Amino acid sequence: MVHDPGAVRLDAVTSVFDWLDTRADERRRAGLARRLRPRRPDSDLLDLAGNDYLGLARDKRVAGAAAAATLRWGAGSTGSRLVTGTTELHTELEHELAAFCGTQAALVFSSGFTANLGAVTALSGKGSAIVTDAYLHASLIDGCRLSRADVAVVGHADPAAVAHALRTRRTERALVVTDSVFSVDGDLAPLPELVAACRAHGAALVVDDAHGLGVLGPGGRGAVADAGLSGEPDVVTTITLSKALGAQGGAVLGPRRVIKHLVDSARSFIFDTGLAPASTAAALTALGVLREEPELATRVRSTALSLAERLRAAGLTVTEPAAAVVSVLAPSPELAVRWADDCRAAGVWVGCFRPPSVPDQVSRLRLTARADLTEGDVDRAVDVITRCAPPEAGAAS
Amino acid sequence: MVHDPGAVRLDAVTSVFDWLDTRADERRRAGLARRLRPRRPDSDLLDLAGNDYLGLARDKRVAGAAAAATLRWGAGSTGSRLVTGTTELHTELEHELAAFCGTQAALVFSSGFTANLGAVTALSGKGSAIVTDAYLHASLIDGCRLSRADVAVVGHADPAAVAHALRTRRTERALVVTDSVFSVDGDLAPLPELVAACRAHGAALVVDDAHGLGVLGPGGRGAVADAGLSGEPDVVTTITLSKALGAQGGAVLGPRRVIKHLVDSARSFIFDTGLAPASTAAALTALGVLREEPELATRVRSTALSLAERLRAAGLTVTEPAAAVVSVLAPSPELAVRWADDCRAAGVWVGCFRPPSVPDQVSRLRLTARADLTEGDVDRAVDVITRCAPPEAGAAS
Ligand SMILES: Cc1ncc(COP(=O)(O)O)c(C=O)c1O
Ligand SMILES: Cc1ncc(COP(=O)(O)O)c(C=O)c1O
Repeated sequence: MVHDPGAVRLDAVTSVFDWLDTRADERRRAGLARRLRPRRPDSDLLDLAGNDYLGLARDKRVAGAAAAATLRWGAGSTGSRLVTGTTELHTELEHELAAFCGTQAALVFSSGFTANLGAVTALSGKGSAIVTDAYLHASLIDGCRLSRADVAVVGHADPAAVAHALRTRRTERALVVTDSVFSVDGDLAPLPELVAACRAHGAALVVDDAHGLGVLGPGGRGAVADAGLSGEPDVVTTITLSKALGAQGGAVLGPRRVIKHLVDSARSFIFDTGLAPASTAAALTALGVLREEPELATRVRSTALSLAERLRAAGLTVTEPAAAVVSVLAPSPELAVRWADDCRAAGVWVGCFRPPSVPDQVSRLRLTARADLTEGDVDRAVDVITRCAPPEAGAAS
Repeated sequence: MVHDPGAVRLDAVTSVFDWLDTRADERRRAGLARRLRPRRPDSDLLDLAGNDYLGLARDKRVAGAAAAATLRWGAGSTGSRLVTGTTELHTELEHELAAFCGTQAALVFSSGFTANLGAVTALSGKGSAIVTDAYLHASLIDGCRLSRADVAVVGHADPAAVAHALRTRRTERALVVTDSVFSVDGDLAPLPELVAACRAHGAALVVDDAHGLGVLGPGGRGAVADAGLSGEPDVVTTITLSKALGAQGGAVLGPRRVIKHLVDSARSFIFDTGLAPASTAAALTALGVLREEPELATRVRSTALSLAERLRAAGLTVTEPAAAVVSVLAPSPELAVRWADDCRAAGVWVGCFRPPSVPDQVSRLRLTARADLTEGDVDRAVDVITRCAPPEAGAAS
């Protein structure tokens, strides 16, 4: 047979991604394959899965402001924030976020993800140390990986271990990086102890308040405000505009010199198109609503507590919610998926978190409270989640 | 004097970010400090700085669709794409992008930045190799840094060096990663030679077509389509929705198994809130406009060529634009800033790129053509840029 270079080439071309099929098989066997489920605008599922904690994403004032901003400013910001991508809307939002949270300045990014990348990388770097909690959000972990700093990961919510890592570091500069409310279990970081450890050892603190803003603290000013740390010169807060504020985007809040530094050096700020006018205006308007209706924050917290209490009373293993997130342990990834599917079939949409989205490899249902859930909604949710629980989950039936 | 722990503590707290002031001073002295300039909705500057190549960000159809989508779907997508953040709009946009660009599938991210992080990290990893061009966009570089792969950076637009790096790699799997149109100088990557090198050495090719989509190829289908590589089983394309499509967001396009793999494993997809409905609808509508008016792509290219030719005729050092970006060399960062400022004072807004945003440390003015620039606009731009040129730039005056 004559050697046919065409055939050889074709085989090389098509086989280059064969390894992806092997990986897909492995995930399928482990019960870890994922599927996108597009939602309809008129879905009548009871939503206990999203992060629209205050119900503002669909608020008429918020959506209306976003629509108006699009017509006035255009659909996109048209460039990097450093070129054409900064509109007066961006500056106004930055001003209002800083004023609300009590910091000198704020900087808006296109997502909470890129805000975290930017804050962590620009404030660390080669020759510095980072100490982090083991249950850190993926975007902060990726920021650490990008940082070129010496990174020490210590146990979950363990300020003594943080202090030890700071004490034994080999670099002058150090950063402690933590979520305020951990995204999977909804538990709170020990912020007072962490800041004390930082101050004892000359480190700065970066807190991701993605799940705290709008939910915790006075008037929903967040977990950092709740810990009395607003405006401290050694504390930097990152937030997202995509959860309690119902929009999209993220921001970093802190001392003016930190914000100036990010403008000059955060790669995920400089090399990224500015946030769309619609999302910028939505976040700005949502912030105004929260200022006028601080009871929204109280309401989402009490709903989360009641949800957790009632599910626990029904025999399930439920975390104590510090904010809006309620986590219910599941016996296995497969049973978690089936449980969530059964809830959905019964009209209640709950999140289902499996590896690699859980730090301890334990799968769970992840429920989120919203300020606009009624008592009837909570009754229905508890009923459905309990009824659909696999026997191994321990629900009294 | 009695030791005062309070005073010691206060000093430790306030000094923790002192190093940022030193860095700011260094940047100021080097002429590299940056400043945000918020634009007004009614600015009458002639915009040659943004990336709204087809003039669609402010198109009434595009902005109108974004506004309508916000009112219908809400201001935010409310969750990760894997939980509540996928609407039918997202799926429709993915379908249309894949159909337009001729790939099996597409996946929408919240930005081009996170799309690049996701594609590069999920398709490489420990035990694989990445070979990249030295002038890669920052988001791709960060993807490489996050990848844990063996990364080899070769010279700019040097396919022989890419082939050599592939041949001498120590891993089985390999990825070649490149921009299609390089963002600073607007020059084209040698895609046919790169794909040949990949095929000769069993590697896959990832092409960031951020500046090619809507501008190059048949009907604006991009540089990958222009090179005849649409739908090839070993090619993955990333794009942004924030330039020619006038919106915000990004996407990865490629074989179905690649897209499935990203859904299951791209961290910047899984751990990020889905793109806002307004931006999703804007991109979808812009794509429809481009389909109906393919001459938009032709027009932006010819405008870029004419701009470059006339500036060169005036004695300036100008790159040959492969797409919409025209780069004009400046003698120093300080002179580049002053040149851009003078143009702005004369009513013409041009970009000014300085280190670290330029791969070769050479500052330049960066101009972008738009499909909706008139001949009068081009006349005015050429006149102002030439008149404001520093003597060292070589303009015949
Ligand atoms: C703790 C935490 N930080 C950051 C993010 C990222 O924010 P965004 O979705 O706005 O990118 C999320 C969730 O998405 C989160 O849960
Ligand atoms: C080549 C290239 N890739 C990716 C990006 C990032 O896209 P986005 O701004 O949508 O995040 C940009 C510019 O911003 C770019 O120029």
